[in-house]
Amino acid sequence: MSGYKVAPFSNLVDKFEMLPGIGRKTAQRLAYFILGLPKDKARSFADAILDVQSKIKYCKICKNITDEEICSICKSETREKSIICVVEEPKDVMFLERIGSMEVSYHVLHGVISQINGIGPDQIYIKELLSRIEKENVKEVIMATNPTVEGEATAMYISKLLKPMNIKVTRLAYGIPVGGELEYADEITLQRSLEGRSEI
Amino acid sequence: MSGYKVAPFSNLVDKFEMLPGIGRKTAQRLAYFILGLPKDKARSFADAILDVQSKIKYCKICKNITDEEICSICKSETREKSIICVVEEPKDVMFLERIGSMEVSYHVLHGVISQINGIGPDQIYIKELLSRIEKENVKEVIMATNPTVEGEATAMYISKLLKPMNIKVTRLAYGIPVGGELEYADEITLQRSLEGRSEI
Repeated sequence: MSGYKVAPFSNLVDKFEMLPGIGRKTAQRLAYFILGLPKDKARSFADAILDVQSKIKYCKICKNITDEEICSICKSETREKSIICVVEEPKDVMFLERIGSMEVSYHVLHGVISQINGIGPDQIYIKELLSRIEKENVKEVIMATNPTVEGEATAMYISKLLKPMNIKVTRLAYGIPVGGELEYADEITLQRSLEGRSEI
Repeated sequence: MSGYKVAPFSNLVDKFEMLPGIGRKTAQRLAYFILGLPKDKARSFADAILDVQSKIKYCKICKNITDEEICSICKSETREKSIICVVEEPKDVMFLERIGSMEVSYHVLHGVISQINGIGPDQIYIKELLSRIEKENVKEVIMATNPTVEGEATAMYISKLLKPMNIKVTRLAYGIPVGGELEYADEITLQRSLEGRSEI
């Protein structure tokens, strides 16, 4: 298996292949597409890559991504500042914001506590969350970390730190997905769904 | 459906989304990945995109992509110059070269004749193929355009032009794929496979 190689092309294929979920064949197809783009479009693609790196920073308050000092959510005057929703990654904020009904503030941890990956509480933005709570008048913290072992553990860790501060700590509800069918739910989810049942 | 937007990030998501086969969710995941890359890696990705545009040109002889005036295949002294394999796109050369057993030359048409898309014989590199054949001592032309209606029509068109020049024109064999099962082959393929049967 040898093959015809053109250095700049192979190089771009390699770059695409390093992206998550992109295999060799797809990487080749994408590189071909780039090759066929008008010059200005290819340049604006390259610029977009550089811009996302140079212009995006973490909000000084909530650590969400932003291109300003303080993100638009933290700046907003209509947002409920006394409720902070804690998430793992900036993309979680985007997902939650998409439903549009959460008029709360956020705090992005940028990871979870994970012994396996050697990530301790000091390596994610927990300290910053605590100092926010000390300074601002926070009534409730909603833990919205992922329902994984590590997400759970991180939520538990943070909630233990918050209890002495007399703050209400809540967790997103577990249960069967809307539109799903009971028989396809796993047992743990079903168990949690049962525990979290509510009166109708 | 609104959502939290950061201009440089949304911009990169848009760029990824314009790539073939990449939807919104994947585009977001890729943009996140880029956001998390070390600066030098992001820069080399951007450079790779610019390089593929600025450094790659068409070989003066066969119109395959190359970063030199003449591609390595046309330059090679061990290649059989009297057999030219005609393909639609540069990627077809890469695919054929991967099997490694084709020690032939190529000619890349960069498209097919297509009435629907308004592409006539003059808009693909047919003229250049003919002048190559006039100048070089070509004995055989292998038509390796795709087995589509347009690929077929283009192959037929070219073969009619070549016949008066007293050149052997061949076509890649049609048939059932190796490892495939008869019952999954479509009828036309099976018909062609029967027509092209050989003695064992």
